[in-house]
Parts: sequence; C-alpha cells; structure tokens
Amino acid sequence: MERTLILDCNQKVGEKVKICGWVQVRRDHGKIIFLDILDRSGVIQVVATPDVAGSLHPQDVVCIQGVVNKRPEKLVNPNLETGLVELQAEKIEVLSKAEELPFDMGSKELDLQLPTLLDYRSLTLRHPKVREIFKIQEVVIDAFREALKKKEFTEFQSPVIIPQTAEGGAEVFEVKYFDQKAYLAQSPQFYKQILVGVFERVFTVNKTLRAEPSVTTRHLTEVTTLDGEFGFIDSWEEVIEMVEYVIKYILSRVEKECGDILKTFNASIPKVSEKLPRIKLREAQEIIFKRTGRDNRKEPDLEPEDEREISRWALEEHGSELVFITHYPVSKRPFYTYEDPDDLGYTLSFDLIGRGTEWLTGGQRINTYDVLVEKAKDRGVDLKKSELYLQAFKYGLPPEGGFSFGSERIVMHILGLSNIREASLFPRDMERVDVRLSTLK
Amino acid sequence: MERTLILDCNQKVGEKVKICGWVQVRRDHGKIIFLDILDRSGVIQVVATPDVAGSLHPQDVVCIQGVVNKRPEKLVNPNLETGLVELQAEKIEVLSKAEELPFDMGSKELDLQLPTLLDYRSLTLRHPKVREIFKIQEVVIDAFREALKKKEFTEFQSPVIIPQTAEGGAEVFEVKYFDQKAYLAQSPQFYKQILVGVFERVFTVNKTLRAEPSVTTRHLTEVTTLDGEFGFIDSWEEVIEMVEYVIKYILSRVEKECGDILKTFNASIPKVSEKLPRIKLREAQEIIFKRTGRDNRKEPDLEPEDEREISRWALEEHGSELVFITHYPVSKRPFYTYEDPDDLGYTLSFDLIGRGTEWLTGGQRINTYDVLVEKAKDRGVDLKKSELYLQAFKYGLPPEGGFSFGSERIVMHILGLSNIREASLFPRDMERVDVRLSTLK
Repeated sequence: MERTLILDCNQKVGEKVKICGWVQVRRDHGKIIFLDILDRSGVIQVVATPDVAGSLHPQDVVCIQGVVNKRPEKLVNPNLETGLVELQAEKIEVLSKAEELPFDMGSKELDLQLPTLLDYRSLTLRHPKVREIFKIQEVVIDAFREALKKKEFTEFQSPVIIPQTAEGGAEVFEVKYFDQKAYLAQSPQFYKQILVGVFERVFTVNKTLRAEPSVTTRHLTEVTTLDGEFGFIDSWEEVIEMVEYVIKYILSRVEKECGDILKTFNASIPKVSEKLPRIKLREAQEIIFKRTGRDNRKEPDLEPEDEREISRWALEEHGSELVFITHYPVSKRPFYTYEDPDDLGYTLSFDLIGRGTEWLTGGQRINTYDVLVEKAKDRGVDLKKSELYLQAFKYGLPPEGGFSFGSERIVMHILGLSNIREASLFPRDMERVDVRLSTLK
Repeated sequence: MERTLILDCNQKVGEKVKICGWVQVRRDHGKIIFLDILDRSGVIQVVATPDVAGSLHPQDVVCIQGVVNKRPEKLVNPNLETGLVELQAEKIEVLSKAEELPFDMGSKELDLQLPTLLDYRSLTLRHPKVREIFKIQEVVIDAFREALKKKEFTEFQSPVIIPQTAEGGAEVFEVKYFDQKAYLAQSPQFYKQILVGVFERVFTVNKTLRAEPSVTTRHLTEVTTLDGEFGFIDSWEEVIEMVEYVIKYILSRVEKECGDILKTFNASIPKVSEKLPRIKLREAQEIIFKRTGRDNRKEPDLEPEDEREISRWALEEHGSELVFITHYPVSKRPFYTYEDPDDLGYTLSFDLIGRGTEWLTGGQRINTYDVLVEKAKDRGVDLKKSELYLQAFKYGLPPEGGFSFGSERIVMHILGLSNIREASLFPRDMERVDVRLSTLK
C-alpha cells in the first residue's frame, strides 16, 4: 500500500490509508489509546485499541494502516491542521524501535538546561519548538539569496582554508596542511572583494570560523555567515541602502512564511521605520551620555549596555528596532576600510544594531592599490600571502563596498532566544564539538 | 548623471548616457579608437577620439558619457547582445587605473598554462571564458536546491569542524582546537542522517575538505559538495530514482539557461536515456572483460579505464552518457552502508558514472542502532565521539538513504574541462592555497 502524507489525510475521509512517521505522544485512556503521529507534512491523531497499539512509545518509527474518520464535533482540534479528522488504526508496523526517552518530549515547551539540550541534540532537535528554529534559519538564508539575486548579484563559493587571516586578527584556527600551516577563514572578505572584479556584484553563504576564546551567550566558533559585496557605488550610502533592502526583505519573508512559528515563540519581527535611523558613533555616545549620564564618549566602540540604550532611543525616537551606527574610528576597523575624507580618522563603515545588539557590519572599502598596500603594511598583513587579494586592485577595481552578518544571530534575535547556541543545529564553542571536549580527555 | 547598464543601451538609441565598467579590449585605428567596455550586464563597443581615449588600456575601470548610436549596417555584430549599437564617447572618467597586463586578456581563448592561470587568478577569472565556468556552477547549485525543495526537502547548514572523521578515513585535516584536536569535515554524512530524524528529507550545500596527498587532475582538497538524504524509503531504488530526478533537473536547467556558455565551450549536456542504465559492479566487470579482454572481475572497484569503458558501453547500448554501477562490496563502502540481504557481501549502494568518471555516490544506510554500532566498532570508529550520530538511531530512524556529489566535478564534466582546478574559483591542493606553498618556505 502506498504511503499517504499526514496532511493529505484531510482529503481522504472514509478512505483506507497508510501513514508513516514518528510517535510523538501516546495517551492511554483505558480501552482507547491516542497516538500523535508526525511526518514531514504534519501531525495526526491516531486512535488504536491496546492490542493494535502494543508497547508503542514516543519516537518509535511506524507505518499505520487505517481509515480516516471525521472527528466527533466536540473533539475537533482547531490548533491542528488535521484537527477535523483522525485515523482509526487497523495495523501498525514498527520500522524502528526507540529506546525509552531520557525526558518528556511531548509537552509544548522542552524545559531543559542547555547542556542537556546539547548532549541529546539528535533527540532534542526533533522537538517542534527546537526544530522550528531551523525552519526560520532556512527562510532567512533563502530570502537573503533571493533578495540579492533580484539585484543581479552572482552567488559564489568562498574557500574555508586560507593562507592567512584576512583581518590580521588573532582568533584564527590553525590547520595542519600537509607539511605546512594554513588557517580557517574568519570571513570571505578577500574573496568577495576579488570577485567584484569578476562579477561586479556577488554574495556568498559560507561557514566562518573563529577561535573565540570566551564562552558567552552570543559567540560560536562556527557560524553560517551571509556576505554581499558590490562595485560601482557612488557613495558608501548605497551600501547602507542595500543592507536596508536586504534586511527588510528577509524580515518580510519570515513574517509572511513563518507566522505560526513566531506565534509559538511569542515573537514578532522587529519594528522598522521607512528609513532606518543612521547616526555616527560619536552622536550615539552623546545621546547615551545625555540619556543616562554614562560617559563613553571617548570610547572607540559601543559597550553592550550602550547598544541596548541606543536601541531604546531608536525605538522611542524613530519607531525602529534597527539602527545604523556609522563612522567607527579607523583604528577599530580592518585595514581595508575606507576613511571618510570629510571626517578624517573615522571610516565610511557601519554596524546595524538590532534589539540591543550588533546584527551586521559593512562599509565602503579602499579600492586603490597603493593606498591598500600601505594600510596593509601598517597592520602587519603578509603581502606575499595576500598576493591574489592585492592583484585584484592592481588590475583595476571600482569603488565598492559590502556587508556581512551571521544567520544564527539574526535568527536568535528574531525569535528572542537567550543563547546563540539554540540557533545553531550543532553549536561549536570552546567546550563542545558535538560532545563535551572535557569528556574526551 | 545616473549610470545606465550596458545592456540597457539597446533601448537608448539617440540618448546621452553614462556607462561604467572595465575596458576589455582597445583597438586603435588612427583617428578612431574602439573600446569594448564590460559591466555585469554585458559588453558594448565604444568609439572614441584619441584625446578622449587617452592612455586607456585593458582592465582600467571607467565611467563613459556619450551618445548611443545605431551602428552602420555593415558594422552590426550579430554575436554581441548590443551589436546593433555603439557608444560615441564624449567624456571618460577613470575610476581605477590598471597596471599593464602580464598577458593578453582580449582574445577569445585564454591560452595559459595552469600555474599561470592560477598565479594570476584574480585577473584570469575576469576572462569571459573563465568567468562563465562559475556561472555554470551557480546554476548547478541553484538547480540542486530547487529540485529538492520541490520534493519537500529542508535545507540545513552542516558543520565544518567535527570531533572525528565520519568515514574512518585517513585523509582528514587536523585543526588545533584550543588545547585539543578537531578535524575538518570530509562530508556532512553524519549530520544529514541525524537530520532525517528531524525533517525526514534534508539537503545541504557544504564545504568538504580532504587531505588528498596526490596531485591529480580530478582531486582538490576543498570542494563544494551537494548532499541529500531522506527517510521512509521502501527500497534503495527510491534513492536511485531521486538521484535521476535531481541530475536530470540540473542538466535541464543548465541546458535552458546556459546555452551560450555551452556553445563557447563547444560542449553539450550529456545524453541521458529515459531510465538511466543500472548494472551491478560484477556485471560491469563482465561486460568490460567481454569487450576488451581486460579481466578485473575480482577487483572491488572500477579502475579509471574501466569507468571509461563502461561509459562507452552505456552510450552504445543504452544511448546514455550516465550509468549507475551498483552493489559495491561491503569492504569498499563506509561502515553505515546497507548490505543487500539478497546478495550478501554486497551493498545497496551505487556510483553514478558520467562521461567516463564518477560523478556521484549514494545508497541506502543501516538504520538499526545495534547493527550500526557493531559495524562501527568493526571499522574502529570512536563511539564516544560519534555519540550524537548513534543517538539518532537509538531514538528511532526510518529506513533511509542519500547521495552526495561535488559541484566542481559536475561542472568540469559538463564543460569538458581537462583539470578540476579550472572548475574551482580558488582551487586548493597539496601545492597551493592561493599562492604556491613552496614560495612561502
């Protein structure tokens, strides 16, 4: 007998079908046993007698033959897509028997401590509220691609193994590369700039790896980043406008396609004003000083509490939960960042702050070979190892800029998750690569 | 003045426009200079006087103002999308000056030795015939995603850093992970199988890394692989059928969208029969023995010359340039491969051979926890490090299978490239990571 997808049972009232899926919940009511069965299309209630249901328990994988019936009116479940019907089981075949679960997977919330959530990741990912996080990530990434394809960007594949770190930073993983050393890419920065010379407009969805030596709620060692870069900009503000377009595109697709998931998380996409507010770092610090008396006006960056305060300001004054902070000092930005000729010492770069924390970073880049080489030397970048990168500028690169953001962080802030590890299928940090590293010693 | 994309000049005859792009070719004809200018939309011929053209040369980045004119009839170029028009230059602004090129980039073929092609990668990628290879890669990857989304597969992001190699192989890169060791993923195998338990059907586009110790024309250390995996299969043949569907979907999109590129390469997509031929490895060896007298009937795998011979056979006998070879011996396949209960010692696995070489590998997997643990132990897999993987089976996984292939290899064989390095933007091998490693010592 052919398999019927659970959602299609709605159209099969009175017919005999075979469904296949996982037992989610078993409820024993004496002579009647109710089973919630899940497949990729949805969930259905199955009614079985004790001899048919046997010893079935959650996570058992089954195929069930039976007849689809209309539910009695008072048993209709308006919260279930198949809530008007149920399957009267006649025969149950067990495809794979699950062990007894270490905790209850049947309740609406999966109330576990983070280490347990991760120690049992292959199981906990099956909980609807955990699984749905990654449906959001899928939509975010797909919307990112779609938004940029509409603007004639070309998708490319950026390398993971690199000869040196692009940004001169220390937090880079080292790889034993035959009898030499190589490194893991912290960003596709060099490659996307090179490819502006080839395709003019490019984007990539790529793994980036950082040896983050600290265990915080917002850092991972492995992240799926979304990067765009494009040439022939008249001004750095075109980069900001492209970011506005992309972010709004992503948020609107999440709102349209993931309404149910947002409801499950009691979440909503951020409020955005028609034009997102843009202020210089120094202006932000001045505002924060006036609002709180906290004087960070000489700092080269925003502290976490500053990011939260400027987010409150943006919402109150501009009705936006997203705000651009621009003009970070030259010293705080990578060597390739364009200095503002009208505001020396400060760069044509920006962060997008959302709901109290950094979402995205971007800006205009230096596109003149000689200037770039000089800045690279100043920061101790190995010119030999950066040969291909510099070559792109040697042979003509237009004024250009771009942006970069982590898919996990955006998902985290859309859903209001408290720890970024929840937004990664298999989170990696100092302490864990699937298993706790301490247990391997 | 606003920029006009070059292709849009077709609609602007008689109008004054500004185009921006790269000088591709300069042809001096005394008092008239012709410039081919390229942007992301296309190429246009610009006509300039010597004083306007100045010292412009290839790869200079320019904005040119002028009037779009119809070409005189005998100068129409039917091979150019803008071949009916040309731009009479009035003013040229140089945005970025290129150095003198080390070789001619203006001819139809870029006739360079591979080391030079790669030493100047940021420049050579700009040659149309090099650039177009990556337009094919973009379409292959996009078509892969689209094909599987139509079959209700969920896209996921698979980790690069892993606690151990999935397949027990030796060719794995080691990473210094804080004060411990980790490895780079050779495949997303474990993770896609885990996620069959979560989403039932999944796919991923992912970097995979192999410490290939040999320098061949068909191996790279870093590859962009396309992986699919799905549950509730009735038989391993469903996996073969899914592969047929995906491959045909990809080829048909390439044919439809990249006709011009195929023509440039004098290439065509492979001929395929309605149902691709499927034969057991032993049958293939028998056929090869009969056709050539070469007796490899006791070998556990096909030699490269066998792959070519069986491809010739498939084309002659079945009119197909693609052929499935099935039933590789248990010993030659990873520990998780399903053994054929009707043909013990041989697996329900397959390779897809295309145009004389392996394109893709797939099969049914063991989905019973106890059997899997036993096979893993036999092959020396570290069970502790594979905890999450085994957990998926402990808590119920349906019969499932999947497949995996490299995007570079498919592009190489569609276009008939002679070396896989040509199908990777920034190829990595034993000898090169952007720069030649020998020059760094």
